[in-house]
Amino acid sequence: MAATYKNHRAQIEAILTGWGMPEDTAGRTAEVIAWADLHGIDSHGLSTMTMYHERWKNGRINMSAQPRIVRETPVSTLIDGDAGLGHATSILAMETAIAKARNIGMAVSSVRNSAHFGACGYYTEMAAKADLIGLVSSTTSIIQVAPSGGKDAKLGTDPISFSAPGIEGQPFLLDMATTTAAFGKVRNKYNEGVPTPPGWLVTREGVPSTDPLDVIERGGSLTPLGGTPEGSDHKGYGLAVMANILSACLSGSTLITSPMHMKQPYGQDISHFFMVIDPGLFRDIEDFRGDVANLCEALRSTSPRDPSKPVMIAGDPERIKARERLEKGIPVGRGLLEKIRAITLEHDIPWMLD
Amino acid sequence: MAATYKNHRAQIEAILTGWGMPEDTAGRTAEVIAWADLHGIDSHGLSTMTMYHERWKNGRINMSAQPRIVRETPVSTLIDGDAGLGHATSILAMETAIAKARNIGMAVSSVRNSAHFGACGYYTEMAAKADLIGLVSSTTSIIQVAPSGGKDAKLGTDPISFSAPGIEGQPFLLDMATTTAAFGKVRNKYNEGVPTPPGWLVTREGVPSTDPLDVIERGGSLTPLGGTPEGSDHKGYGLAVMANILSACLSGSTLITSPMHMKQPYGQDISHFFMVIDPGLFRDIEDFRGDVANLCEALRSTSPRDPSKPVMIAGDPERIKARERLEKGIPVGRGLLEKIRAITLEHDIPWMLD
Repeated sequence: MAATYKNHRAQIEAILTGWGMPEDTAGRTAEVIAWADLHGIDSHGLSTMTMYHERWKNGRINMSAQPRIVRETPVSTLIDGDAGLGHATSILAMETAIAKARNIGMAVSSVRNSAHFGACGYYTEMAAKADLIGLVSSTTSIIQVAPSGGKDAKLGTDPISFSAPGIEGQPFLLDMATTTAAFGKVRNKYNEGVPTPPGWLVTREGVPSTDPLDVIERGGSLTPLGGTPEGSDHKGYGLAVMANILSACLSGSTLITSPMHMKQPYGQDISHFFMVIDPGLFRDIEDFRGDVANLCEALRSTSPRDPSKPVMIAGDPERIKARERLEKGIPVGRGLLEKIRAITLEHDIPWMLD
Repeated sequence: MAATYKNHRAQIEAILTGWGMPEDTAGRTAEVIAWADLHGIDSHGLSTMTMYHERWKNGRINMSAQPRIVRETPVSTLIDGDAGLGHATSILAMETAIAKARNIGMAVSSVRNSAHFGACGYYTEMAAKADLIGLVSSTTSIIQVAPSGGKDAKLGTDPISFSAPGIEGQPFLLDMATTTAAFGKVRNKYNEGVPTPPGWLVTREGVPSTDPLDVIERGGSLTPLGGTPEGSDHKGYGLAVMANILSACLSGSTLITSPMHMKQPYGQDISHFFMVIDPGLFRDIEDFRGDVANLCEALRSTSPRDPSKPVMIAGDPERIKARERLEKGIPVGRGLLEKIRAITLEHDIPWMLD
């Protein structure tokens, strides 16, 4: 199955309104979720709807949330997400930061009392489209990453995203979990019946392993980027802590290391961080964009190790995928499709993916 | 040999003034260089003086540089480093950012026309001491890192540093090259006659290797953090590009990919980026510090894989080293000591390291 992008997005929006989300919020949320699928970031697209469905039914997501600004200055905005999904709240946070940066050159928005917000890259792309540098991070709900040298998982995949405008429509757009590999990739190796590459995971004793079951069944953990102490996993670990400081400590949300993590009486209290800088503070924006474009072009022109795989810059693989999927539609696996179909039947929501 | 910290710092300052650096600039520069040695970051301490000596004699460093502010707004400062060493210029840049953040809550300084500035962590620690979050990056002179999937080196070690105040005197302080390992570590493996761990380097054909000579003699490259495509080296590569955008593209300095890199008629045109955020924009600073402290303590309490190696947070290893070296002095290897001695003799500078 590969529905058109338009139908795919409309299906997501219909489900969200079917769950009771106000129309404008549902439109914005569907926009972010469908953007992820369009760009090949399937882990943050339609597949998240089954997770949201479950969390909503368990009373952990407020579908009629009304995010509100609780504190602000000329450079900053603190937003309470009202225990809703993070997408629309995050668009508000980034729009507010962009508007303030237009006045004063830089701004930061901090969001508390939120939930999963989809792919970070959607929000940093908003900054790049506004001719600004963007930096975004978030906390996560699932504890699955052990600190460098440690046995027990204490952190999440704790993503960081950074963007800068260059050639029109081709911003530099880095969007990375601070782990070596995502859990989904470990599960894929298990499904294929093959070991993981070295460095992806550790056993519950903190010993490096390549057996997917160590993470899937035996209480092992994902590794921070770097993979092993010799591979400098203290750097990925440090970046994960940075994401938690920027998101949770700045906004005053529940720490992932707190006994109250995911146990607050209402909602999930996930937190996010959004920052923008106007390059015009320092030089003409066209000169800045020209230099970013030159840097990216010089990197793309690097002789590739494998001639069939040209060197790219962050954002390129997703743009290639988006062009392909705009043309051919967005493929959805049979298993996921059946789960989404069941959700539409359960809530009497129109079906649009045939 | 292990001179006291005081003598070690005084020796560096004496050499700098012996080279014609004004006294106040020399004091600030020596402060940063000796800080690196004190904290065990030997690659950025006294050992850099031999490199500075050579570059100065080759006319690439202006020892009487007078950095000046060339453009500013309430949140931003653009500084021209006048082709001098980067240390004193960078202290000015961070001091200026801190002063502006005191007024308005956040600020950014961009430095162009600079040179090597020592260890990033010195500057982010300044932010933490001022109760602010700090983010610093820099470009580099040496091209030695291949993009993910590429054959040729195009980037440098492109460091990023992040700090946040927590327990008094124990900020979270991440200071990382965006490579898997530094060149010095590859050279150490060669000197020991052992292969490097997998993932540290690639041959000039971009093929993973563990032979130090591939990098030392045969034109190979260091890898971005992650080490291999399967280890997600596109993430380290992306972080390196981020450092170049924040430093070079924002300030308008020479791109590392430009044919003019290290070929400008005067100086090196290295660039730096400094940013600070006041957590007081969002909440009481003591609450913020308390949460950073709690997060760090929870991570430190993780069961270690090796009981003799407790889990630490970024900044801990350097603080342990600093306590040790304040007490026992700063060790300097015989080879380096002889080179420094020769410099003092050449320029008739007092000798203080016996």
